[in-house]
Amino acid sequence: MLDGLFKPRSVAIIGASNNPLSIGHIVIQNLIDHNFQGPIYPINPKSKFIKSFKTYAAVSEVPDEVDLVNISIKNTLVPMVLEDCGKAGVKYAIVHTAGFKEVGEEGLKLEKQIVEIAHKYGMRIYGPNSQGIQNSDPAVSVYANFTFVPMKPGNISIVAQSGGVGETLKLHLHRIGMGMRMYASFGNEADVSMNEIIDYYGQDDETKVIMVHIETIKDPAGFLEVASRVTRKKPLLVLKTGRTSEGVAAVASHTGSLMEQDTMAEAIFEKSGVQRFDSQQEMIEAAIALSTQPVPKSENIVIVTNTGGPAIIAVDECIAAGLKLAKLSPETGKALGELLFSEAIVSNPVDVIATAGAKEYGGTVEALLKDPNIDSLILNFVTPPFVDCEAVAHKLGEIGAAAQKPIICIVLTIEERWGEVIRVIRQSGIPVYDFAESASKALAAMIKYGQIRQRPEPDYRTHDVDKKKAEQIIGRYRGQDKFLPQADVFELLDSYGLPAVKTVRVETKDELKKQVQKLGYPLVLKVDAEEIVHKTDAGGVCLDLQDETSLLKAYDRMAESFKKHKPGFVLQQHLSEGREVIIGATAGQGAGPMLMFGLGGVFVETLKDVQFRLAPLSQAEAVDMITSIKGFPILEGARGAKAADIDKLAELLMRLSQLVSDFPQIDEMDLNPVFAFEKGKGAQVVDARLKVRKL
Amino acid sequence: MLDGLFKPRSVAIIGASNNPLSIGHIVIQNLIDHNFQGPIYPINPKSKFIKSFKTYAAVSEVPDEVDLVNISIKNTLVPMVLEDCGKAGVKYAIVHTAGFKEVGEEGLKLEKQIVEIAHKYGMRIYGPNSQGIQNSDPAVSVYANFTFVPMKPGNISIVAQSGGVGETLKLHLHRIGMGMRMYASFGNEADVSMNEIIDYYGQDDETKVIMVHIETIKDPAGFLEVASRVTRKKPLLVLKTGRTSEGVAAVASHTGSLMEQDTMAEAIFEKSGVQRFDSQQEMIEAAIALSTQPVPKSENIVIVTNTGGPAIIAVDECIAAGLKLAKLSPETGKALGELLFSEAIVSNPVDVIATAGAKEYGGTVEALLKDPNIDSLILNFVTPPFVDCEAVAHKLGEIGAAAQKPIICIVLTIEERWGEVIRVIRQSGIPVYDFAESASKALAAMIKYGQIRQRPEPDYRTHDVDKKKAEQIIGRYRGQDKFLPQADVFELLDSYGLPAVKTVRVETKDELKKQVQKLGYPLVLKVDAEEIVHKTDAGGVCLDLQDETSLLKAYDRMAESFKKHKPGFVLQQHLSEGREVIIGATAGQGAGPMLMFGLGGVFVETLKDVQFRLAPLSQAEAVDMITSIKGFPILEGARGAKAADIDKLAELLMRLSQLVSDFPQIDEMDLNPVFAFEKGKGAQVVDARLKVRKL
Repeated sequence: MLDGLFKPRSVAIIGASNNPLSIGHIVIQNLIDHNFQGPIYPINPKSKFIKSFKTYAAVSEVPDEVDLVNISIKNTLVPMVLEDCGKAGVKYAIVHTAGFKEVGEEGLKLEKQIVEIAHKYGMRIYGPNSQGIQNSDPAVSVYANFTFVPMKPGNISIVAQSGGVGETLKLHLHRIGMGMRMYASFGNEADVSMNEIIDYYGQDDETKVIMVHIETIKDPAGFLEVASRVTRKKPLLVLKTGRTSEGVAAVASHTGSLMEQDTMAEAIFEKSGVQRFDSQQEMIEAAIALSTQPVPKSENIVIVTNTGGPAIIAVDECIAAGLKLAKLSPETGKALGELLFSEAIVSNPVDVIATAGAKEYGGTVEALLKDPNIDSLILNFVTPPFVDCEAVAHKLGEIGAAAQKPIICIVLTIEERWGEVIRVIRQSGIPVYDFAESASKALAAMIKYGQIRQRPEPDYRTHDVDKKKAEQIIGRYRGQDKFLPQADVFELLDSYGLPAVKTVRVETKDELKKQVQKLGYPLVLKVDAEEIVHKTDAGGVCLDLQDETSLLKAYDRMAESFKKHKPGFVLQQHLSEGREVIIGATAGQGAGPMLMFGLGGVFVETLKDVQFRLAPLSQAEAVDMITSIKGFPILEGARGAKAADIDKLAELLMRLSQLVSDFPQIDEMDLNPVFAFEKGKGAQVVDARLKVRKL
Repeated sequence: MLDGLFKPRSVAIIGASNNPLSIGHIVIQNLIDHNFQGPIYPINPKSKFIKSFKTYAAVSEVPDEVDLVNISIKNTLVPMVLEDCGKAGVKYAIVHTAGFKEVGEEGLKLEKQIVEIAHKYGMRIYGPNSQGIQNSDPAVSVYANFTFVPMKPGNISIVAQSGGVGETLKLHLHRIGMGMRMYASFGNEADVSMNEIIDYYGQDDETKVIMVHIETIKDPAGFLEVASRVTRKKPLLVLKTGRTSEGVAAVASHTGSLMEQDTMAEAIFEKSGVQRFDSQQEMIEAAIALSTQPVPKSENIVIVTNTGGPAIIAVDECIAAGLKLAKLSPETGKALGELLFSEAIVSNPVDVIATAGAKEYGGTVEALLKDPNIDSLILNFVTPPFVDCEAVAHKLGEIGAAAQKPIICIVLTIEERWGEVIRVIRQSGIPVYDFAESASKALAAMIKYGQIRQRPEPDYRTHDVDKKKAEQIIGRYRGQDKFLPQADVFELLDSYGLPAVKTVRVETKDELKKQVQKLGYPLVLKVDAEEIVHKTDAGGVCLDLQDETSLLKAYDRMAESFKKHKPGFVLQQHLSEGREVIIGATAGQGAGPMLMFGLGGVFVETLKDVQFRLAPLSQAEAVDMITSIKGFPILEGARGAKAADIDKLAELLMRLSQLVSDFPQIDEMDLNPVFAFEKGKGAQVVDARLKVRKL
């Protein structure tokens, strides 16, 4: 799709210049330095030649098809130039020029105008206010970007919303001699979008890993769709900044909504199998391992070391990340016992001790690779002055090149003396890290990707519901933004099989007396008027009414105090058992409705122990939401209590997911509290609020 | 104190050898390569000379005073050699040789033997099974160590339990061209201890920062004492491994007790002002900033950048670490508005934009340094190809060298092209990082140290208590390991002013009836026999007894079911209000008693929301314990409830701290639950357990 952008057969530079500090000049220099496999056409009406390339006054004068142009002229001149490009049949225009949407109203108008012009000619805009693109594929070798990190072929592709972050990612790869596949920092995203670029990388066979930097997700639904597809094929690592409200404020001014965007982004990542990082370094280090080593089959790892301390750091990090230290098979134990010095420790970590040479260290790795209990290896190697360290490196390199299980390495050495050790190991494809922490976190990310790849296809089963009836109820409020009366809410719950405590609506005292027979004491009486949203706070709820006297007293008091609202009343069975949980849903922002689950009260409000997931919920996702809250042991039956009916709670979540997916006009819905009873006895909604919105 | 070790005037090498792979040879080479300021005496009865140094058959034959010896001969020969050293007046013996405590019973015996021999002559043992020491002080320049990282003068000193970790720390400093002051990796710690070394570094004026790697703290009380003194003068950064049970198992086999050691270590660090790190890299990066820049006065920071993305990462990291983005003063705003290009963003972060040169970037930093709202600066600088980046670096270097506020920098560049930029900035003392995350975390550590330094002297006030009476009660159980009867526990609480709900002990039904008058209904009846520790589980507690009928029924039932224990009974007022908390104390392991605070029930057991501190508790520590639990908003009055009496809870903690400090024979004590009432109304212990131990 984006071949004209990432595999251009020819590039024209509009704004080309002999001034070596100009973007037009730097882009030409970068194209030349990286041996672009196509002709370069500088466009400049005032010069005859630039860097010995003949110049043209306009793209339309170039005697050749031009796939891609790089534009770095004044913002107000861009529309005119684009008309010329369009007429000349240019496919993609990278607009480096700033002064568009990011500067306000005028700029936004100009931005819309250039996209319109481009689309008129079937041309696409990349940017404006953008760095550019790079593709290291030797058949193309295009560096249509004004940045400074040299490019060489590799298999990690990068797309970064911030050019500064993109540059940091490239820099680290460059520093350790790693190549890169494709790069894009797309600026204002007026036309060619981040999602398209990710999709393109996903389809590129030579791209093994994708790193993404995001500040805001412009099209969340599109991102969810693309990311879900891509992560089935290759790891998608994301650094999303703006985690804190101050960070968000630094991204833009409309704080409130974006804070929610981070929760939504988190839910999108979870659902689509995107791996999120808070640290650039950790993301790069994970990408390096994922791009060079096979995907681990399980979380069972082994650590090998020739010095104790760093291995213990690796153990701490790996365990904290949920990995497991494999138990060596008896065969492996026996083999190592025979191979290693008597001071060696044959357990996990395996300490081959500092005096181990190529035979001992290499033999250990070979034995561990054969052990069926082990699915990946971390090797820690300090270069002892009394050992032939290069021989160890050559042996490890030989083993690494042929290994079918992932191996990653920490080497503690000075490059001036043992640089060859690092070089030889890296050449075999084994990544080399400076710190045990880095290696452990990278391996944890690899194992996480293995788990994502092994996820079964989601089971989005639907339940039998009475959708017609629900349509009828919700249909009454078409085009309105309002909270529904409680009786309607409970009827709606019933239509989707969401079990609620027995509830009837009454208008008068006589009706009240009549309904008591059906429900039986103890009872709850609640006021029901749409203006009264927070009923408990307003004194509109009376719990545990034991007999007619207290019921009528409560009725009289409420009828009096709420009389200006002309309220109805809701009469409910009073439940004295069950564990309180909250289930909720919001319409979400662009990626569909979001479901919420938590324990009630302080667990939600104070401890923020809440889980969010995007609808539709699969069976596995519903269970995962419940089991992922920190307070889950409470539902599981902490302190001798019986376990709550988790299956039923999961079913409630799925039915609610189905309801809010069927009716996008549901703006927010709170089932609070829901009482969960012991296993096999289900759960009942005790109170519920529902707000519809105008679509 | 350790001058003979770290400032030896002469060194003898026992086990010196012409084999370049032997430790004896490598140590001599390291001493020569680093130009040791004293004579070197190889000891070897078989060679005439080693590396052109005349050899001696024994230390006693050296015609000179020998301060320090390095020993790397076979373990069984060490005692004999030490006798000779002792007679010759050697002050310190570094024993590299392994095969001591770490190999079991035999080795431990040998280890004790060598310490005895040494002490007989007033000599000290460093090790055995140790790397060695280094001191880069040009007046000494001693590298009495067999490791490979070159040494140059600096002001960070390192002590590492694991040589591999020590080497990693030195390596990173070496890689970025930083020096180091002193180094020690002390092996088995048979004599010269980690605490002594830390103390020595603390007294060394040229040491500005100390980095420590710990696996186990051998002498916790000593560490607490030394660390508390040192952190008043300079930052003490610690990486303690063995955080997870698997990590601990990798350290040693006696898992259980060491798991608790990590909690204790955490409490020691908190009390003594030690800054703990889980990552070697983060510790090193913090040390670099702390060793080169002044201590920040407050958490008010400013971020300056010439590219957006990385600054937002810095914002996220800084905010997550509790720092605050300062509001620029109006004067600063005005100055920057006049100085900078119109596209620049004058807020915090300040974005000077990529085209900013030395005048704009430098002028911005100068203006911000003058702003009283700002106490430290993070500068993010990407090297744009269209700017004179070296001029910017020189300007920043000039400003940095004179600045009175801390400045740290992130530089995004390739060293091949702009290495001078990094060099110039570093030379001014401003540390340069590769990642915004690193710089932010380093600054957060600096600010944390500023807060530690500003801590007031702890207010260890004691309360009026009846210590005599407490002595009487506890004295009854001298030499026993047992739980006290409840009545004694309540009497003890009373003697230390720990208010408990009104409680009386009764033996018979008649007494019971009599006591009811004093307390009034509702009442709680509990069985009281020392064999019954978990009374509630055993059915030995009846709550909320409303009248005589129910009280006597409860009494009869319990008297019957516990009759084999011949129990007494405890009668208590029943409290229906108040918020439950748990307060506890344990005798601790080596660093004195440990206090515990948490909310009751699931908050402690499931959510592990508990705080620990070491006795004695200062006023500030007691309050900090309470306010540090995640559920603190619940005590503060979440969901419209009234705030609990925090002051009184703090007083309870301090009184309990006083009690367990006065009586080390108290093994464990649980006040569970304690009911905290609303502000001004205090708190009452409802139930309590106390176990004494034989001392």
